[in-house]
Amino acid sequence: MPDPDAFLSACPSRPLMARIGDKWATLVLVALADGPYRFGELRRRLDGISQKMLTQTTRNLERDGLVTRTLYDERPLRVEYELTSLGQTLVPQVKSLKSWAERSWHAVEQAQATFDAVHGTD
Amino acid sequence: MPDPDAFLSACPSRPLMARIGDKWATLVLVALADGPYRFGELRRRLDGISQKMLTQTTRNLERDGLVTRTLYDERPLRVEYELTSLGQTLVPQVKSLKSWAERSWHAVEQAQATFDAVHGTD
Repeated sequence: MPDPDAFLSACPSRPLMARIGDKWATLVLVALADGPYRFGELRRRLDGISQKMLTQTTRNLERDGLVTRTLYDERPLRVEYELTSLGQTLVPQVKSLKSWAERSWHAVEQAQATFDAVHGTD
Repeated sequence: MPDPDAFLSACPSRPLMARIGDKWATLVLVALADGPYRFGELRRRLDGISQKMLTQTTRNLERDGLVTRTLYDERPLRVEYELTSLGQTLVPQVKSLKSWAERSWHAVEQAQATFDAVHGTD
């Protein structure tokens, strides 16, 4: 088998890149780096995410082996999400991507204003 | 102004995270880390990308100030894409994300098989 290379369309790393680059997936992974979260806590942490989108995001992450979902037999039911050891290996990357965006958005907005002044905004 | 925080829905870093996490944007940035590319060269490097998608991706990156597009007055016309200094600051992040996916897809596929055996694939 040749070395994995996301530049090649058939490489399984390419759809994986798309899933981990998703902003909601990235934010869930960054949140869980601090420890386990319940569903409702995660939803409050990811300001503005819908219940449906969070359900879909955590399910994809669970299926990819990055997150575990544990159901505790309590009343009311408690569901907790936690990083797996594989998920832990992705924490530096997602934290670094989030930090870059937080540090760079202002420079990006200035670039956009210049671009739009030249090219129009349509 | 409070510190940027992508967990907050109004923070401009959040849509920026979505754009830089896009797999095509990531692959263009990784490719350009090696030096300038012509449009046709980029298209061949990003195996399977359509002309339309590459045009849209490079235009977004140009608008965000991460890439420059230079038109040379030659016959045939030559168009070259190159990282800006802001785009250079994102190279470690995108390279690291791509490497993680290439290194981890096999573990992810194993996790998916286990998940699907338990939950079904529908």
